[in-house]
Amino acid sequence: MTHSPLSPTPRSTIARGKHRAVTERAALYAVLDAGLMCHLAFVHNGAPVVLPTSYGRDGDTLYLHGSTGANSMRIAASGADVCVAVTHLDGVVYARSVFHHSVNYRCAVVHGRASEITDDEGKLHALRVLTTNLAPGSWEHARRPTRKELAATTVLALDLAEASVKIRDGDPSDDEDDIAAGVAWAGVVPLRAHWGDPVPGQDLAEGIDIPGHVTARVREAP
Amino acid sequence: MTHSPLSPTPRSTIARGKHRAVTERAALYAVLDAGLMCHLAFVHNGAPVVLPTSYGRDGDTLYLHGSTGANSMRIAASGADVCVAVTHLDGVVYARSVFHHSVNYRCAVVHGRASEITDDEGKLHALRVLTTNLAPGSWEHARRPTRKELAATTVLALDLAEASVKIRDGDPSDDEDDIAAGVAWAGVVPLRAHWGDPVPGQDLAEGIDIPGHVTARVREAP
Repeated sequence: MTHSPLSPTPRSTIARGKHRAVTERAALYAVLDAGLMCHLAFVHNGAPVVLPTSYGRDGDTLYLHGSTGANSMRIAASGADVCVAVTHLDGVVYARSVFHHSVNYRCAVVHGRASEITDDEGKLHALRVLTTNLAPGSWEHARRPTRKELAATTVLALDLAEASVKIRDGDPSDDEDDIAAGVAWAGVVPLRAHWGDPVPGQDLAEGIDIPGHVTARVREAP
Repeated sequence: MTHSPLSPTPRSTIARGKHRAVTERAALYAVLDAGLMCHLAFVHNGAPVVLPTSYGRDGDTLYLHGSTGANSMRIAASGADVCVAVTHLDGVVYARSVFHHSVNYRCAVVHGRASEITDDEGKLHALRVLTTNLAPGSWEHARRPTRKELAATTVLALDLAEASVKIRDGDPSDDEDDIAAGVAWAGVVPLRAHWGDPVPGQDLAEGIDIPGHVTARVREAP
């Protein structure tokens, strides 16, 4: 299966650090699928607001959700422009100069207008995608949403048509003079996330073991 | 030393999940000081944009920096409203119901207008704060910025006057009916970041050992 490359619009064209732009759609999917939380930006009373929230991807749709009472959901559901960033910090780049200190990272930024999903079938599909990104296996294991819970949840779909990906990896990029002079140590200190051991809830009844989908996740890198 | 509590303005008052709001200024400092990257939101051509960037805190000032050519810096330096979020994802909360699935996290959100620092002394101070947050010890070890590098860098100061902190930790919050019925496993899978072993640059001359400030960092939790 092949995908169209990312087709930059003016606002999804990377202006700074162009050499770090990645234009394959598969790279966008990889960055999004490796994450659990995004940062959602919107404009409220003329000023920008950014908040963390969970998300899930299905094809070229990014799903978001939240309480029907949340400003972020109300504004995004109204068809206002939003912007979503998913960032993975992979390490700190120690250069020979302070100026070239940097980070290794993978970042996807999506621009667009979300549409609200209002029918129960569509909401359930989106919530399955969201749940499965956050907690694979939970949709099959946990109690599904009631109609009342569905009604209390705003579900949004954001098309991935307008997106950019920027990746930095590898060595520091120092000036030749600094390299030749050997003014300082240079290298990368990687940063990695790990799952800890599952902590059962204090009110969990005895005899409910940690299920396989949870233990399987813990064995994987996040 | 005591600090004033966070004094919420309308936009820094947490409307959803009020029980997760933390109003001690020390909590704001703790969340900011535990992070390396923030998400900076601004408005460009009427639409929100959010990008990851590094930062550093000194007292009640958050410093940001970037290339003089970056849209984000140009817009923020113009005195437009910005919003900065620093988020730590501490774990995934597996509830008995899909509806109550959640994440444990610590998040600080700062609203305000940044001011550009233009004098060399002020820029060097801010860059020292930024560098020390990203790579403690590098300001003392690596080559300091030249006048040309300083001139190519926009440095911004954002006051921490208007900020909010939201923290979720601990067990799932399930409905009593679901707890009583024991419908599913419930608990938390913690997520933690770890430093990997430092990777010297491929062009690093032999004989330049990994310095103490780098090995010391790797022994700490990020």
